[in-house]
Amino acid sequence: LKQIKIGIFGLGTVGGGVVEQLRENRELLKARTGTDLVILKAVVANPSKPRPFDLGPIEVSGDPNFILDDPEIDVVIELMGGVTLAKEILLRSFVSGKTVITANKALLAECAEEVFEAAYEHHALLGFEAAVAGAIPVIRVIKEGLAGDRITEVSGIINGTANYILTSMSKKGEDFQKALGKAQEKGYAEADPTFDVEGVDTAHKLLVLMCIAFGGIFDFKELYTEGITKIEPVDIEIAAGFGYVIKLLGKAKEVGGKVEGRVHPTLVPEDQMLASVDGAFNAVKLSGNFSGPIVSYGRGAGARPTASAVVADLVSLVRQRESETSPVPPLSLMSEKLKHRKLMPMAEVLSEYYLRFSVEDKVGVLAELTRVLGSHNISIASMIQRSRSEEGGPVFVVFFTHEALERDVVEALKTLDQLPFIAQPTRMIRVDPS
Amino acid sequence: LKQIKIGIFGLGTVGGGVVEQLRENRELLKARTGTDLVILKAVVANPSKPRPFDLGPIEVSGDPNFILDDPEIDVVIELMGGVTLAKEILLRSFVSGKTVITANKALLAECAEEVFEAAYEHHALLGFEAAVAGAIPVIRVIKEGLAGDRITEVSGIINGTANYILTSMSKKGEDFQKALGKAQEKGYAEADPTFDVEGVDTAHKLLVLMCIAFGGIFDFKELYTEGITKIEPVDIEIAAGFGYVIKLLGKAKEVGGKVEGRVHPTLVPEDQMLASVDGAFNAVKLSGNFSGPIVSYGRGAGARPTASAVVADLVSLVRQRESETSPVPPLSLMSEKLKHRKLMPMAEVLSEYYLRFSVEDKVGVLAELTRVLGSHNISIASMIQRSRSEEGGPVFVVFFTHEALERDVVEALKTLDQLPFIAQPTRMIRVDPS
Repeated sequence: LKQIKIGIFGLGTVGGGVVEQLRENRELLKARTGTDLVILKAVVANPSKPRPFDLGPIEVSGDPNFILDDPEIDVVIELMGGVTLAKEILLRSFVSGKTVITANKALLAECAEEVFEAAYEHHALLGFEAAVAGAIPVIRVIKEGLAGDRITEVSGIINGTANYILTSMSKKGEDFQKALGKAQEKGYAEADPTFDVEGVDTAHKLLVLMCIAFGGIFDFKELYTEGITKIEPVDIEIAAGFGYVIKLLGKAKEVGGKVEGRVHPTLVPEDQMLASVDGAFNAVKLSGNFSGPIVSYGRGAGARPTASAVVADLVSLVRQRESETSPVPPLSLMSEKLKHRKLMPMAEVLSEYYLRFSVEDKVGVLAELTRVLGSHNISIASMIQRSRSEEGGPVFVVFFTHEALERDVVEALKTLDQLPFIAQPTRMIRVDPS
Repeated sequence: LKQIKIGIFGLGTVGGGVVEQLRENRELLKARTGTDLVILKAVVANPSKPRPFDLGPIEVSGDPNFILDDPEIDVVIELMGGVTLAKEILLRSFVSGKTVITANKALLAECAEEVFEAAYEHHALLGFEAAVAGAIPVIRVIKEGLAGDRITEVSGIINGTANYILTSMSKKGEDFQKALGKAQEKGYAEADPTFDVEGVDTAHKLLVLMCIAFGGIFDFKELYTEGITKIEPVDIEIAAGFGYVIKLLGKAKEVGGKVEGRVHPTLVPEDQMLASVDGAFNAVKLSGNFSGPIVSYGRGAGARPTASAVVADLVSLVRQRESETSPVPPLSLMSEKLKHRKLMPMAEVLSEYYLRFSVEDKVGVLAELTRVLGSHNISIASMIQRSRSEEGGPVFVVFFTHEALERDVVEALKTLDQLPFIAQPTRMIRVDPS
């Protein structure tokens, strides 16, 4: 198996997630790419700092040239943040033909022209899915999922910190300072929260999405950006009275050839999908001229969700680098890894159940129902009894069960439905609490 | 510009959508693929039937060999449905090296082994995004967006007809037969609705998703499938009382190496994302071992949304066929089409506004506020006045405006905030009703 040699810049939260994911999913990644993806080198600000994960074969240095000057390194993953050094890393990697993956939205937004033009010039393989909305594959949805559409709108909640604060303010009536303090305690906001609460991070991400969605390079300085620091509880309360939720929205649309883009707190009607995105989650709404609206929702930050986006780019770009035929096999796995798989028989499935019995209204019925269910290992979570309209007619008894085996439920109902007090076959519907 | 020659099987609803999309978005598709995508031939059951769209240069025949035997045709799009002929079309196209796009979930599910094994054997470029969940790029999200993740769960509402009927039953208290009749009247259900209401269509789609998500070929006959025909209004009502909505769910998960898959009506807690998917919309929830949950939502059927998925596959596969470097350029457009774009100045943006004035509680204030707003072309949609806790202190007057120009609002507030009865600077928050 060919080894793909990776050099990583930054071993913080996301870097650690990437190291873990490549280790934990190694066999699966081999089956999907036909290669072995191995991080051989890391460059970090403080090479002697202990890390909360096993480094394995990774050699660590403080010198960027340790990776950039190594012709053996195929792929560079940049997770350091900041603009100056990160830009140098990207530009030099493009020149030397290395595949590049970055999560650096500040760099891509503030230096969009320089970075993207260099990527085009050198026919670089460049992935930046992790720069926007964590695990949500929004860049892939725009570039590939809506590849046939003229995109008319991009909007979203793409900063988990600001959304966490607004959600706290909204659900607990807290003011901005208190909600921010709590977010900082819980690790959802940084000690200096400026970029998140002033909308800068949202603006960085929106600008990246706009460049792809509307086919061009925009100037970050032209993007109107307003944060959430001036939102007061009274505004949240009044808005709620009118059926609105206040969200920090990044939104851009193209109308008649003109592109409008802006980041600011926005009153969103509470029945809209975006209004129900709470806490640290992100959501992005895209509209294409044929697709109509598409909303994608998921975790917008954190070690594992962001690593997920980095590694998806890695798989995608390695498939493009290495494939001589189709970069994406029909079922994603390489041919030789494809297998026939058996489904678990329905009888072995565990579920919760809704059971509606139609029974004669007489003493002892309830006891008999529970007894038979119990004897089949089915325990009851809740129960109601409902009388029907006609006097003396059958009544409904409804049970919600705890998790039980399908086989046991089928057997129990077979027995129960033959009892004399059962008026109609029992209605069983499965319940999915997750 | 190289021309990509396309042969299409089927010119019904979706076929018509594809013809229109290739025409309407032609220049954009050139910019994204560096090729000109042209349908030259169509094969339909009844070649003389008039079509509600302009055929342009498309030659129409009733003989499949008209396309299959033409070595000039690069790409075959199969939108006829049915299993026997469609399978022959796919298999023969693989053998002759044609790129294939299909929306045929019945074929892919019922003949999964034969079709996918042939695709692998011939290194075929095969796209089937349109087979599941219309415009939602769920196949791409699994194959590429979650390419680095072990997928643990796939579940979703992937049949719009059944969901439309359940939504009607739930919102209007109708019974199944009545809701079905209305769905048929409105064109959401076919004259023979068996596949939709018995869960077969959902099962077809789930099986396709399972093959990609869990890396293997499953047997459609093993998939437990139960429809919605036995759901009664009383069950919907009782479920609602316990905080649940009844949905036709397709769900599969992998636990400890075993895969469980099933299609049946399910009680879903009403605060879950999937519970709020109403009418003809679809939604799919995916979970990866690093990504966490990702929910994608959009239109699950219809001419334009389904065409959107077909054309996205077309772009993706043509990029793979034709590209010598990266199949997906960094910003999606070909280099020479990339341009610098100006943003619309914020002053020219149209929005609705929430304006909260803090004013002294005296006569004439409201009149003056409305007068100044009116003189800046800002009209009021609704208004409330709120007294503050302290007696004699300032009161809040809140206006929701109709759409107005940002410049006008900024100017109006500049004037208003200098008036003597204004106690604090006015809070302005933009409102997005869409």
